[in-house]
Amino acid sequence: MDREGIRYFVKYRVDSDKIFVKLSQGDLIIESLLSIATTEKLTSGWINGIGAVNFAELGFYDFHHQKYFKKQFSGDYEINNITANIAMKDGVPFIHAHITIGDMDFNVSGGHLFEGRISAAGEFVILPGSIPIDRIMDDHVGLALWSLGD
Amino acid sequence: MDREGIRYFVKYRVDSDKIFVKLSQGDLIIESLLSIATTEKLTSGWINGIGAVNFAELGFYDFHHQKYFKKQFSGDYEINNITANIAMKDGVPFIHAHITIGDMDFNVSGGHLFEGRISAAGEFVILPGSIPIDRIMDDHVGLALWSLGD
Amino acid sequence: MDREGIRYFVKYRVDSDKIFVKLSQGDLIIESLLSIATTEKLTSGWINGIGAVNFAELGFYDFHHQKYFKKQFSGDYEINNITANIAMKDGVPFIHAHITIGDMDFNVSGGHLFEGRISAAGEFVILPGSIPIDRIMDDHVGLALWSLGD
Repeated sequence: MDREGIRYFVKYRVDSDKIFVKLSQGDLIIESLLSIATTEKLTSGWINGIGAVNFAELGFYDFHHQKYFKKQFSGDYEINNITANIAMKDGVPFIHAHITIGDMDFNVSGGHLFEGRISAAGEFVILPGSIPIDRIMDDHVGLALWSLGD
Repeated sequence: MDREGIRYFVKYRVDSDKIFVKLSQGDLIIESLLSIATTEKLTSGWINGIGAVNFAELGFYDFHHQKYFKKQFSGDYEINNITANIAMKDGVPFIHAHITIGDMDFNVSGGHLFEGRISAAGEFVILPGSIPIDRIMDDHVGLALWSLGD
Repeated sequence: MDREGIRYFVKYRVDSDKIFVKLSQGDLIIESLLSIATTEKLTSGWINGIGAVNFAELGFYDFHHQKYFKKQFSGDYEINNITANIAMKDGVPFIHAHITIGDMDFNVSGGHLFEGRISAAGEFVILPGSIPIDRIMDDHVGLALWSLGD
């Protein structure tokens, strides 16, 4: 997935216990949030966002076959809501994000967000945690899940 | 609604002004959040979450007849978003939650969440308040609504 | 859009770093949040909410023609989620809100929220920022977007 080669600059501001993030046309959501998590050394945290995308790859986890169905949405969609979090997986930050998107008829689709490309704008807040959350592989589920201690 | 008898263990971590919550397969969402509110003596607060359910009972409030239409969703759904809060009703914590869920075709349903049972995972953050919020019966509406003082 | 002339009183409580907001039947969502932002001199912040509306005007931004498609939803809807933020535009607070609403069949619509009128109840939290965020016109996008400094 390319960025349409138009513009690429993630901007963010640390405001005491919050980080406000502005994404611009062409920015990739997960990649951008990950770059902030890395730069700011975030090891846990919660994320909320709105905006618009012109591409998004969504996933639905098939628990029984332990794999994701994926679907790519091309065209313009409002981001009605992104709810996501930051944890550590294999020693590096990992963003787990779910999304609802709305089309020009206001119909809504939603699921796990693998990646999305911003069109008009993206506005996010990150609420950083202070204690790392690790993701550990859960063989029963087939996914790396939060580990919060004993 | 039973928990499928597989596993049942709510885990959470208090990280200064946030509580990160991990729910696992079989955990009931409202019951689990309520148990944390009780244990941690939370009397107000805001909640956000994502994950997946294999059962959820949703409600739509019919204002004119002052009762909820209910519908049970069985099968696998991603939790696109849970937005909820904690307040005190009749002296004990009460969780008011709304949810959007997405099926394998990425179609989204949503409403008031009476209860839901986690399948793959549940990841939540609670932002506790420090001043109790009381829910007082509003006879005009037919529901116990927030009272924030005069 | 009128308020049905029934009741009109926004209530809110500042609880250290959060503001809990109760909207009542007939209250307009954006207007109410804006009045709180003005009274409390909020120049940035993040907002989350749930509740129910009996009217909402939603928008979908047509990037290519740089204008919003609008649709009015009349009738009863649950507010599954409102995700919004506060920034300064032309020297006064501006609320940018996205919403998902659900009907009695639990079908979900969503988009940019121009305005909505509360039916049963509205429950919101505002997380104020401490540094102003300005919205500056972006001629390429056709909207006033966050400016977070260089």
